Amino acid sequence: MRVLEEEIGLSRGAIFHHFADKEALFLAVAEQDAAAMRRTVAEHGLVQVMREMIAAPDAQRIGTQLEVARRLRTDPTFRGAWQPQQESLEAAVRERLQHQRQLGALRTDAEIGQLAGYLELVMEGLTAHLAAGLPADRLDAVLDLDEVSVRQG
Amino acid sequence: MRVLEEEIGLSRGAIFHHFADKEALFLAVAEQDAAAMRRTVAEHGLVQVMREMIAAPDAQRIGTQLEVARRLRTDPTFRGAWQPQQESLEAAVRERLQHQRQLGALRTDAEIGQLAGYLELVMEGLTAHLAAGLPADRLDAVLDLDEVSVRQG
Repeated sequence: MRVLEEEIGLSRGAIFHHFADKEALFLAVAEQDAAAMRRTVAEHGLVQVMREMIAAPDAQRIGTQLEVARRLRTDPTFRGAWQPQQESLEAAVRERLQHQRQLGALRTDAEIGQLAGYLELVMEGLTAHLAAGLPADRLDAVLDLDEVSVRQG
Repeated sequence: MRVLEEEIGLSRGAIFHHFADKEALFLAVAEQDAAAMRRTVAEHGLVQVMREMIAAPDAQRIGTQLEVARRLRTDPTFRGAWQPQQESLEAAVRERLQHQRQLGALRTDAEIGQLAGYLELVMEGLTAHLAAGLPADRLDAVLDLDEVSVRQG
């Protein structure tokens, strides 16, 4: 809670004036993070989201993603509630790839759904990697390769 | 413990006759899984490990990997103790890629370290994905793409 108070710039009382309980507060934070991610995906693509995560790992955001992953694993109710978020991120990734394909900037030997699933898998790996506190110094070079894989060569 | 008793085919008493405590037992299980993974990597590559995970998700093994990831995040002592395992898996991945390169089967526009880091990231993503109970039906097609990316086109 203290971190959240500092983050949001509101006192605990003011925060709970807006949110019914911790659960509602967590959902609001997670949805805000997901919306920010969708905006970056729409403008610059999922690889840019990953580059920003490597350049400036945001402990609060990684913590939120880990908690979302934990609840997806353990809480079927949350899994249902989170599905629209999951689907709209996937839709944003596919739209961005469609856009890149129309510009002729995308490799042509794979379907959009295949490329989207691939990028999402790399993204999940990056989150787990950073959350584990493993070194990120080689990862920017890995993403160069990643870009090469998806881009028209 | 009950799952472990069934898995190993020994009673709780017999298990603790061999292992000092739960901690030692967990380490033995995790090291056994890591050794099995290294063998598959050496013979067939990391992509084959991923294909086997998708074809027959092993809840116990995924649970062990999640617990290793959790301890890497939260327990600096474990992080130090696990480092040799991490390094020998990475070495096995690099050796396999070197071998493929000597056979002329590997894409030539990237360094071995870059390709290894990339495959390890996809592997981390797959573990997180399966652990979250997300659908695995599209993932085999994603790995086809993955193979294409690493293989000589």
